[in-house]
Amino acid sequence: MLTLLHHCGRNLLTFSTIQAVNKSYYSSQMAKRVAVVLAGCGVYDGTEIHEASAVLVHLSRGGASVNMFAPNIDQMHVVDHLKGSPSEGEKRNVLVESARLARGNIQDLSKLNITEHDAIIIPGGFGAAKNLCTWAVQGKDCSVNAEVQAVLKAFHGASKPIGLCCISPVLAAKVFPGCEVTVGIEKDDKYPNTTDTAAAITQLGCKHVSKSVSESLVDGKTKLVTTSAFMCDAPIHEIFDGIGAMVKDVLKLA
Amino acid sequence: MLTLLHHCGRNLLTFSTIQAVNKSYYSSQMAKRVAVVLAGCGVYDGTEIHEASAVLVHLSRGGASVNMFAPNIDQMHVVDHLKGSPSEGEKRNVLVESARLARGNIQDLSKLNITEHDAIIIPGGFGAAKNLCTWAVQGKDCSVNAEVQAVLKAFHGASKPIGLCCISPVLAAKVFPGCEVTVGIEKDDKYPNTTDTAAAITQLGCKHVSKSVSESLVDGKTKLVTTSAFMCDAPIHEIFDGIGAMVKDVLKLA
Repeated sequence: MLTLLHHCGRNLLTFSTIQAVNKSYYSSQMAKRVAVVLAGCGVYDGTEIHEASAVLVHLSRGGASVNMFAPNIDQMHVVDHLKGSPSEGEKRNVLVESARLARGNIQDLSKLNITEHDAIIIPGGFGAAKNLCTWAVQGKDCSVNAEVQAVLKAFHGASKPIGLCCISPVLAAKVFPGCEVTVGIEKDDKYPNTTDTAAAITQLGCKHVSKSVSESLVDGKTKLVTTSAFMCDAPIHEIFDGIGAMVKDVLKLA
Repeated sequence: MLTLLHHCGRNLLTFSTIQAVNKSYYSSQMAKRVAVVLAGCGVYDGTEIHEASAVLVHLSRGGASVNMFAPNIDQMHVVDHLKGSPSEGEKRNVLVESARLARGNIQDLSKLNITEHDAIIIPGGFGAAKNLCTWAVQGKDCSVNAEVQAVLKAFHGASKPIGLCCISPVLAAKVFPGCEVTVGIEKDDKYPNTTDTAAAITQLGCKHVSKSVSESLVDGKTKLVTTSAFMCDAPIHEIFDGIGAMVKDVLKLA
């Protein structure tokens, strides 16, 4: 019965996938092929939804073709976003929940073929700090998911740009000692967690550069592009625009 | 342990809420107060994520203050968005899942006070056709959730604008016989489900007006503003822009 109802609904109103649409609209050889890596669906236990959506809108406007990926692992937590606390005993899979953001069009991160992509972008949200690495609980002593680490090193090794926002620049700080990233403006009330996060990044041997929510930082040497996004207490359209700056710089370097 | 981990994460990186930010930035008396009603989180069983995000970005850019609401009911389905089929036996609550889109800042729809709002917007996705009404399974013979119906009639009765996109205009067609809405362009391959949906809308005594994904339709008499969004197989930035046109018209009428 549930299957029937669902198929009924699905037939009634067929949504196309973002990827298919982009491919049909931007099938020229000029289209940049960008891998977007997700970490669930929801700010407190997965990818920050509005950051991911902004990344996709800006990539689409920039004429890029997009493939989405997520690790096929359990989430560290399932957080009841209404209560703001974990749902004890509930399990959700990162890939399955990420598929909500991808409208079903997503693959296991283990399938990501670096040669088929010109760049990679990882949005923020606690999922980046809980499911892609363990920064949320271990800070600079965190471990990075092995697949995520391998993918980041492969893009870097191929001299392809990596775009990160919000808390996800800590992935680069952990994997690429010596890199330059931003997670916002230090010692500024609008960026309540930037100072501490920047200190941890510095302890990892990296350089933190203060940048406002509207700006992206380009580390030309490592082809890393970062922006603070929701690390800043800004209206959502300013976060959207800052992510636009990051995406633009990633596409320039790709 | 889970609680500890979560709080650790939460303290490490405090995300502000969209509403709080908007309030602090746009606290002038001129700010339009808009209620956004959600229906879950994910295209196949809840609110279409990118439509909701676009609504929030455009409202923020327009200087509106936003309060989000959702009915405190079980979802009709939980759909595994990776497989595209219902997860048998799994239950999720519409309000709790909608809180993912709202970053926790959302209220039970029963708490919506019409006098405190100048307009209402309901994004699309199957949640609008499964949880706010039963259109996905019953078409024009559907029933509308009693709270949703009461809220729509109250905004209409107070001559306050109602913004709808994608499949959610069917809510207006069901509640306001004689109204004019768009769900895209009839007999156009880019809008694969528009023709059938428009026929059902017409059978309800309403008028369907074909409009492209970039346009919104304003029914001045009922103060209804509609746009097709993901009813069109368009790149996501075109859907984003079309929703921008709808939001702009809603704010003009508010």
